[in-house]
Amino acid sequence: MGTTQLESVPEPKYWHLRTVLTEALESEFTVGEILPNERDLAARFGVARATLRQALEQLELEGRLQRRRGVGTTVAPPRVGVDVGTERQTWPGAADDLWDPVDCVLAPPPAAVALALGVPRDQPVHMVRRSRVSHGQPVAAELLYVPQESVPDLPAIDAPAGPARARAVLREVQRLELEHEDRAVELGSASADDAKELDRLPGAPVLVVTTRFHAEGRTAALSVATYRADTCRLTFGASGAVEIHHGPERQAS
Amino acid sequence: MGTTQLESVPEPKYWHLRTVLTEALESEFTVGEILPNERDLAARFGVARATLRQALEQLELEGRLQRRRGVGTTVAPPRVGVDVGTERQTWPGAADDLWDPVDCVLAPPPAAVALALGVPRDQPVHMVRRSRVSHGQPVAAELLYVPQESVPDLPAIDAPAGPARARAVLREVQRLELEHEDRAVELGSASADDAKELDRLPGAPVLVVTTRFHAEGRTAALSVATYRADTCRLTFGASGAVEIHHGPERQAS
Repeated sequence: MGTTQLESVPEPKYWHLRTVLTEALESEFTVGEILPNERDLAARFGVARATLRQALEQLELEGRLQRRRGVGTTVAPPRVGVDVGTERQTWPGAADDLWDPVDCVLAPPPAAVALALGVPRDQPVHMVRRSRVSHGQPVAAELLYVPQESVPDLPAIDAPAGPARARAVLREVQRLELEHEDRAVELGSASADDAKELDRLPGAPVLVVTTRFHAEGRTAALSVATYRADTCRLTFGASGAVEIHHGPERQAS
Repeated sequence: MGTTQLESVPEPKYWHLRTVLTEALESEFTVGEILPNERDLAARFGVARATLRQALEQLELEGRLQRRRGVGTTVAPPRVGVDVGTERQTWPGAADDLWDPVDCVLAPPPAAVALALGVPRDQPVHMVRRSRVSHGQPVAAELLYVPQESVPDLPAIDAPAGPARARAVLREVQRLELEHEDRAVELGSASADDAKELDRLPGAPVLVVTTRFHAEGRTAALSVATYRADTCRLTFGASGAVEIHHGPERQAS
């Protein structure tokens, strides 16, 4: 009975600074503008360098700042909406596909992929590497795993690797009737290969979209796509132009 | 012509350590086990504390480690698949809804939300706060913004706030015919309110899912839901059990 004392929310220093910095960014800076160096910023806001760095990392996570080597920290443009889920389900490589084939190799997949595909651990599968560019910027890198039994008529001789091979695999997989696809999105970090393609450092935060393509009653292909988390907003459904900035101003109180 | 020298990928120290640690976690530790303290770990791997901390942060980002105050760093269980996109589109609060209403207030929304809803900046809207629990853990917090014109018959007198008010708003909004919903997913950081509900510190990485509900030719409601990025994998489509762990082993080479 009686009233319940609401637990007070601890507000760490960096979080308070983050809020102050957000307001400063909105009122004093324009997109692309370079921020003063860390020492000057720390002095201006009367905080330790470590606290400043934590707040800057926060704002980078939220896509408000970009740190670029050799340039410094700049005010980021709004995130780009990148369409992921289409209402019409199609195979990778279909006519209106936005991905570019980069390479293709035949090799045993990681254990978890082999399990998801239902192929023996040591059995080589086609691994198609593709990349996606939006507004002139690399936004995503993909590995598409295609078991050999999904493309039985793939010619073995010509173009053993490279983009031509990738296109051949994509062409063959489209002969199967796609029954269904399902998708998962989670936070991850860029592998060395992905990082190079995305123009980031290894370990940069990425949104990992895993898509399973079902055909002939089994998983006929599996796509693991990593999107830059700093610049991308993944959109699902017809009109993806949801433009909401997230921050402390979202509080209901 | 001739061969192209492949640009070598710089591998920062923390990234190498992250790979080594991942292997150690898989071979020597079990889920829930507490890691040795930072000093001992740094000594064992022959790295500076700062490098170790960067690698631990990486593994936390990937959902492999959890840092819990008063406990230490533990090996995380696999992420929980949380269904987000259903093929059948429904209003929030429908019969099989997985969210619990927590509170409801009438107040002016953030500027970006007002814009998305097409309401004047200072016009109060219903802000329904809901929470979602999965496997006994809080996984997501939501603010659902409902303009007053979407629920014209809402009784004004009884239950001005609280869960009862939230249920009344949800009940009323379901009278509208839902035409379409679209969704965006992006990386964000937990606000103080969300952090409390999700049992995290403010600024913890979250996956922000923004959903627009269209009815009567306009955006009749807008949901901003924040999911714990450390423990959740958002699933779209009927069968969401995609279980792929991401890491450097994903490389095609």
